[in-house]
Amino acid sequence: MAEVRIGVAGAAGRMGRMLVAEVDRTPGARIAAGLERPGSNGAGSDVGEVAGIGRRDVAIVTDPASMFAAVDVAIDFTAPEATVAHARLAAEAGRGLVIGTTGLTAEDRAAIAAAAAGAAIVLAPNMSLGVNLLMGLVEQVAATLDPDYDIEIVEMHHRHKVDAPSGTALGLGEAAARGRGVQLAEAAVRSRDGHTGARERGTIGFATLRGGDVVGDHTVVFAAGGERLELTHRAGSREIYARGAVRAALWLAGRPPGLYDMMDVLGLRQAGSR
Amino acid sequence: MAEVRIGVAGAAGRMGRMLVAEVDRTPGARIAAGLERPGSNGAGSDVGEVAGIGRRDVAIVTDPASMFAAVDVAIDFTAPEATVAHARLAAEAGRGLVIGTTGLTAEDRAAIAAAAAGAAIVLAPNMSLGVNLLMGLVEQVAATLDPDYDIEIVEMHHRHKVDAPSGTALGLGEAAARGRGVQLAEAAVRSRDGHTGARERGTIGFATLRGGDVVGDHTVVFAAGGERLELTHRAGSREIYARGAVRAALWLAGRPPGLYDMMDVLGLRQAGSR
Amino acid sequence: MAEVRIGVAGAAGRMGRMLVAEVDRTPGARIAAGLERPGSNGAGSDVGEVAGIGRRDVAIVTDPASMFAAVDVAIDFTAPEATVAHARLAAEAGRGLVIGTTGLTAEDRAAIAAAAAGAAIVLAPNMSLGVNLLMGLVEQVAATLDPDYDIEIVEMHHRHKVDAPSGTALGLGEAAARGRGVQLAEAAVRSRDGHTGARERGTIGFATLRGGDVVGDHTVVFAAGGERLELTHRAGSREIYARGAVRAALWLAGRPPGLYDMMDVLGLRQAGSR
Amino acid sequence: MAEVRIGVAGAAGRMGRMLVAEVDRTPGARIAAGLERPGSNGAGSDVGEVAGIGRRDVAIVTDPASMFAAVDVAIDFTAPEATVAHARLAAEAGRGLVIGTTGLTAEDRAAIAAAAAGAAIVLAPNMSLGVNLLMGLVEQVAATLDPDYDIEIVEMHHRHKVDAPSGTALGLGEAAARGRGVQLAEAAVRSRDGHTGARERGTIGFATLRGGDVVGDHTVVFAAGGERLELTHRAGSREIYARGAVRAALWLAGRPPGLYDMMDVLGLRQAGSR
Repeated sequence: MAEVRIGVAGAAGRMGRMLVAEVDRTPGARIAAGLERPGSNGAGSDVGEVAGIGRRDVAIVTDPASMFAAVDVAIDFTAPEATVAHARLAAEAGRGLVIGTTGLTAEDRAAIAAAAAGAAIVLAPNMSLGVNLLMGLVEQVAATLDPDYDIEIVEMHHRHKVDAPSGTALGLGEAAARGRGVQLAEAAVRSRDGHTGARERGTIGFATLRGGDVVGDHTVVFAAGGERLELTHRAGSREIYARGAVRAALWLAGRPPGLYDMMDVLGLRQAGSR
Repeated sequence: MAEVRIGVAGAAGRMGRMLVAEVDRTPGARIAAGLERPGSNGAGSDVGEVAGIGRRDVAIVTDPASMFAAVDVAIDFTAPEATVAHARLAAEAGRGLVIGTTGLTAEDRAAIAAAAAGAAIVLAPNMSLGVNLLMGLVEQVAATLDPDYDIEIVEMHHRHKVDAPSGTALGLGEAAARGRGVQLAEAAVRSRDGHTGARERGTIGFATLRGGDVVGDHTVVFAAGGERLELTHRAGSREIYARGAVRAALWLAGRPPGLYDMMDVLGLRQAGSR
Repeated sequence: MAEVRIGVAGAAGRMGRMLVAEVDRTPGARIAAGLERPGSNGAGSDVGEVAGIGRRDVAIVTDPASMFAAVDVAIDFTAPEATVAHARLAAEAGRGLVIGTTGLTAEDRAAIAAAAAGAAIVLAPNMSLGVNLLMGLVEQVAATLDPDYDIEIVEMHHRHKVDAPSGTALGLGEAAARGRGVQLAEAAVRSRDGHTGARERGTIGFATLRGGDVVGDHTVVFAAGGERLELTHRAGSREIYARGAVRAALWLAGRPPGLYDMMDVLGLRQAGSR
Repeated sequence: MAEVRIGVAGAAGRMGRMLVAEVDRTPGARIAAGLERPGSNGAGSDVGEVAGIGRRDVAIVTDPASMFAAVDVAIDFTAPEATVAHARLAAEAGRGLVIGTTGLTAEDRAAIAAAAAGAAIVLAPNMSLGVNLLMGLVEQVAATLDPDYDIEIVEMHHRHKVDAPSGTALGLGEAAARGRGVQLAEAAVRSRDGHTGARERGTIGFATLRGGDVVGDHTVVFAAGGERLELTHRAGSREIYARGAVRAALWLAGRPPGLYDMMDVLGLRQAGSR
């Protein structure tokens, strides 16, 4: 079988270099393009040399359309504005796109969903196998336990993260809301400060910690009289996201247009859960 | 519908008194007998007065056969030897039995299984809803993740507990082994000390903590390169066991003979998982 | 030595009844008065009967001045407004006061400090030995580690708690700020939601969880590149607060007027730390 | 001031390469020698090239005496037998030695202590700032709380670790024993399995988890009626050990012979605690 040609947006950044290295070491995948903003460090250099894996004779370009022309699937962990533009270009070019960008607004997501009419897109706030398994468990537990069990979601990330709660925490909240049959937007209590009053039954609370170089810890608590169930994922290395993203890219190759997530990629989608 | 008549073995002990009170406050259940060893405190007294809920005009007897004669279902959180004897008496009398006793040997379990030919018996190392839900999750995760994910089970109980690992921890180990399609007896590493060598792939490790008045904490860890999934249950009050035991007793009333567990009682049994 | 005569404000509430029982079982202490609001359940009844420990021939009064007249020290876990009024009455009557009330404003605290010119007052957001030891550790660690270590404080309490963060969490924040030589009011980030930007060096973050019947869990995290130090206290029973409050009341008897805290009571005050 | 010349034993191994890189990037330190076993990969190569930091014109030798001749201080994270031999050579050559090797027996430690008559040696089961701070806290808490507080130590390391409990866990146990004024050898319960009986007052329990690529998590629990204090350190990267080892090497340069630990290096030694 032919290798899947993969492009990496933001190829000179920390996550981008990790993605390039991961593509390079994955059987069946080949690094075929890198993209950076015009004027950024790395633009014009060899994508392999920038990633520290040796020359691959693939230059980092600054024109997104050139990247899409050269690949079957692109991987994008950049920033919301760029990602939305890339989704549109993927649709025009008829190429796959794996999106791991965080901090997307509802509007951004709608634009990506629209682009998915013309492109096969995997959108996941978190690409790791463990996190996506956790999402499945949370949906299931929320569906099993009645609202006597209060749901709380707490996460910790490194000091450089700029948004709160994390995209993954919100994804876990959506899984819990889906299990409960409610809308997260109506049930969410995104932070607490001052005189909050007693906890309202059925709400889903969030709490956010920032510090050090923590890659990402998430815990979902189900608390009732006399007992607590706590489901935790701890990420120790960003390699789990790169591994998941490349797995998603290989899975995407040849799929029909549509918006997919990691539950689809990993075959964890529960019948009727969507 | 007639109330289910329930007896409590060890009615004057700490757990027994909690069970009596729980039966008394549960709609559809009636405390119909209490049992204690001959000569123990409480023998001959009123079961309600001993439990601190007021006179119920039910004396605590010292003859197990008298207890079974007066009830539809008995609840037993006593000690292995007594529990095995009670299982045989339940079969002779054709009454239900809910067993929450811990520290049972393989031989004890075999004797109870034999008695279940003549009596409907619920045997569960832990009666709480949360713990049994955890067992279901552990089986499922162990079935989904390959043995690159090392499984470790750690528990903490109060300083008075005399066996290790807890019956619940072993039950979680059995759930993990079932998910993996292996035998726990072959996969278990029950403790580690000294030069152990590197961890053997596919094993299931146990670690035991004892201290204070901890009711019971259990965590199952799935650890692989770059990530960990940790599933934890924390019990804050023994009332969750009493609540589960009375729920099991009501569920048992009128069932055919057989050996059941809390997955049956709670309707969490996965198709084909047994 | 004569017994210390102790009064309990809010004597018919959950915490009040626990305090009455704790006073009653503590050698050297005697329950001498109970107080409730006019018209509340329990007003006029016997304080021991309300607490479930049997008649003590001490009626629950509704006039705070009567309570103070009958005691050496009063214990108050009621509400901010009532507590401030009680502090003034304690000063007028020249009696001791142990305050465990939470949700006090800066203004409330100033009023209590003013009253302490005429009364010996112990004010502590949390009376437990473990929590106060934790406060000492946090101050010390914050003084040892430089601001490369980000400080985050996370707490979980039961669903009925109406303020956030807990008084204890704020007390831990003050201990951390003291250790760092900064003002908590300037360093605190009390919650996070939305686009927060990167974590600012030197800040002290808070996160709040609510659910179930959790008595009170607090964790202080010190996170730097490659490592985290996490100091946690878990309360399993409100008895630890009642135990600490009665210990504080006995310690207060005969002290000169002034504002004290549990570090003083427990002899954990570090030289120069105040 | 002249740079401190540092040698690294096991220079071609994973930890060794990290140490070489850390020495190289630390102001005041210079990589002056590397050592490997005869016939191992890396022997004869350039120490910098092996570490991936570029040529440093320092060959990896196979004769320990040559390494000591070229350095002021050597750093050793190899294996017990080699480390004991190196300690003797350090004493003969009058050079400093920083030992991070784990799995040392009592006999090994005695041999190292004997060698410290002629060489300044830092011996620490764990070089991280956070862990050593934790040891200081544990000693202090154990000295403050009475034996109503049960002490338990639980640790988790990666699947390749061959000894249990970890050297760090045992070091934490020694800190706790020192605080209590007891001998760890008499108080330690190193694992639990089967019918253990109730917990014996005053003992210090250990529990060991192994899995994934966990760098090293340690928790010391103090558990009493109604409350738990849990002090945890989580290592996310072995760089914290390399950082601490190089800091220890710089501190050692010019010290008189003797056996030191990280409490000395970091100035955390409490008066009279040794």
